[in-house]
Amino acid sequence: MIGPAKNSVPATNPTKKLLLSPDSIINLDHGDPTMFEPYWRKLGEKCTVEISGSDLMSYCSDIGNICWFLEPQLSDAIKRLHRTVGNAVSEDRYVVVGTGSTQLYQAALFALTSPGRAEADPISVVCAAPYYSSYQEETDFLRSGLYKWAGDAYSFDKDGPYIEIVTSPNNPDGAILEAVVNRKEGKLIHDLAYYWPQYTPITHPADYDIMLFTFSKSTGHAGSRIGWALVNDKVVARKMTKFIEVSSTGVSKESQLRAAKILGVAIEGCQHSDSENFFKYGQCLMAERWEKLRDVVKNSQIFSLPKYPQEWCNFISKYSESHPAFAWLKCKEDTNCESLLRAHKILTRGGERFGVGQEYARISLLSRERDFNQFLERLSGIKTAGQGIRTT
Amino acid sequence: MIGPAKNSVPATNPTKKLLLSPDSIINLDHGDPTMFEPYWRKLGEKCTVEISGSDLMSYCSDIGNICWFLEPQLSDAIKRLHRTVGNAVSEDRYVVVGTGSTQLYQAALFALTSPGRAEADPISVVCAAPYYSSYQEETDFLRSGLYKWAGDAYSFDKDGPYIEIVTSPNNPDGAILEAVVNRKEGKLIHDLAYYWPQYTPITHPADYDIMLFTFSKSTGHAGSRIGWALVNDKVVARKMTKFIEVSSTGVSKESQLRAAKILGVAIEGCQHSDSENFFKYGQCLMAERWEKLRDVVKNSQIFSLPKYPQEWCNFISKYSESHPAFAWLKCKEDTNCESLLRAHKILTRGGERFGVGQEYARISLLSRERDFNQFLERLSGIKTAGQGIRTT
Repeated sequence: MIGPAKNSVPATNPTKKLLLSPDSIINLDHGDPTMFEPYWRKLGEKCTVEISGSDLMSYCSDIGNICWFLEPQLSDAIKRLHRTVGNAVSEDRYVVVGTGSTQLYQAALFALTSPGRAEADPISVVCAAPYYSSYQEETDFLRSGLYKWAGDAYSFDKDGPYIEIVTSPNNPDGAILEAVVNRKEGKLIHDLAYYWPQYTPITHPADYDIMLFTFSKSTGHAGSRIGWALVNDKVVARKMTKFIEVSSTGVSKESQLRAAKILGVAIEGCQHSDSENFFKYGQCLMAERWEKLRDVVKNSQIFSLPKYPQEWCNFISKYSESHPAFAWLKCKEDTNCESLLRAHKILTRGGERFGVGQEYARISLLSRERDFNQFLERLSGIKTAGQGIRTT
Repeated sequence: MIGPAKNSVPATNPTKKLLLSPDSIINLDHGDPTMFEPYWRKLGEKCTVEISGSDLMSYCSDIGNICWFLEPQLSDAIKRLHRTVGNAVSEDRYVVVGTGSTQLYQAALFALTSPGRAEADPISVVCAAPYYSSYQEETDFLRSGLYKWAGDAYSFDKDGPYIEIVTSPNNPDGAILEAVVNRKEGKLIHDLAYYWPQYTPITHPADYDIMLFTFSKSTGHAGSRIGWALVNDKVVARKMTKFIEVSSTGVSKESQLRAAKILGVAIEGCQHSDSENFFKYGQCLMAERWEKLRDVVKNSQIFSLPKYPQEWCNFISKYSESHPAFAWLKCKEDTNCESLLRAHKILTRGGERFGVGQEYARISLLSRERDFNQFLERLSGIKTAGQGIRTT
């Protein structure tokens, strides 16, 4: 859940640049990717789009396409981007655009379960814990008769059809994952929102039936609400399109146009030097943040972080380790990690929201620099698990 | 349903300007409001928005607001617009923005029924027939346990809580409607998408608990997918916001920015002469189209149209009648009106989709001029109910 946090730093509002006081709350609960703003600001007019009053008025973008509300230039940019980065097979795939990958996740559930049968139980939806905290709510909030959240894939033992979400790199913990249930009646949705060079080595082009990506995490443009699915099967692509048609009659054309432009600039940048290459720039920035964070955690008696293996990244042509968008921080001594951090005015998301213990918390590392540095400073000041927590 | 229609005129694609051949299909099935393009084109740069690569990157727009993803300048423009046009009370109302009013309709259903009770039946959703053809699908497509389509409000006789949608002016038939069930356990959603001066006289500012409006029908910008709700109750506004958060993590910032700009220009135009006043311009254009259409129908032996009363319009300060966005055409002799028109390569939507008989068809009057004129020409050529229909 994103939303108003009382007294929180308006880090989310780029127009306000208040100084951080020691009393300010640092909101690292959600992964608002504002750290990438300076990169795009530096590019100046190169990424600017201009839209006149009579542009983009129709509901339709491409009536010959299954996804009739997808702007052709966005579809082209998406396919070229995947070819350039090498993170997914996009040739001969249907592209379905959504209002963020949030909507596409729900479109995929609908596509894999509809029309269903009136007398049948809803189909179980599972994901390996720790799993993304919003899947459960997105699956269950309308109490659909088509699908129903069934929790941790590791403990799933119900017979019959099911859907497994595979999130890789995983949100919250950055792990590279594969499906765990592996039964014939299962269908898979691969959420690859974080499979980009800045977060993890690109070891191969992903090649799955339904792959979800988002503009929010690829380039940091969360406000545009643009996600896309690469889909193998025509019927699934058609049903996902149907879902988006019924739920929002398509997807903002302005956002699509701007996404096409910015992805185009990102692709072009990949031909140039490291500092102009958004993904290499992002990779360096994330590596720096992780180095600083690991330094603080190394000197701590109570916190620990996951370790990631070195892998060859085809994109940067180097061995590298993952530098996930979130830190999956663990507290020793069975401490409630989220509460401990909250006592130090750092808002994070506790392990229980991800289907695991309260000793974990997920912390966004995509904030503006000022907030990230302040977070490190406060973290390094926490010496004991009880520090700052009121027991009354 | 909007979507690909085989061999149809790409009237929906503003970049293609093919000439209409007698064999072309004219797609008047959906209400794509492309007739307003010339007006906005004439305004030139006045409505142009420019968005740089680093703008609008955050998920959040206004973290102090219940609807935390609503851009403040859009909220302001919406309230000023309603004050200027006089079609709805917007002071002291919560504004909730959605991905079109499609999404807001579903958000309102969720807000009025959640969290519900596990053992309870879904709450009945009704609307007076003829009702908007998409309500049923939008209500039932996920087989929600919270709400369920129950059809025509006139024949609704189930006890207990229910939701009634009041669409006024009505889609498809342009009638001015009020709630019909009127029981204490009922809650109302007012869909006022067409309550604008170009379609109907503005007789008073509407003042209901939940009022839905859309950028698509107010100014003709359907591609932006911007709708808004004016909501009386804080809890309902919060739940509607929650729905949009869970279903799409907010609404395109680019579209919101552009909508704010264009609504601002429309408001300014209301201070000027008739030709610069979008709503007066639109009112004249719709009146002209209706006059031409009534002329053709008057000379026909088989078609008829609804009659609308003269009412005082506060906005144009004149008596006027309604000029709805759709023609609700009726065929004599129990003919299938949609099939008859399809035989003449005019795509429309048949009465059965709206909960009434096949002698009716809904025809969009918001197409580009070329298509509208061609439609009239073909309509005037239909002399008998069997003409052009193959019986094999």
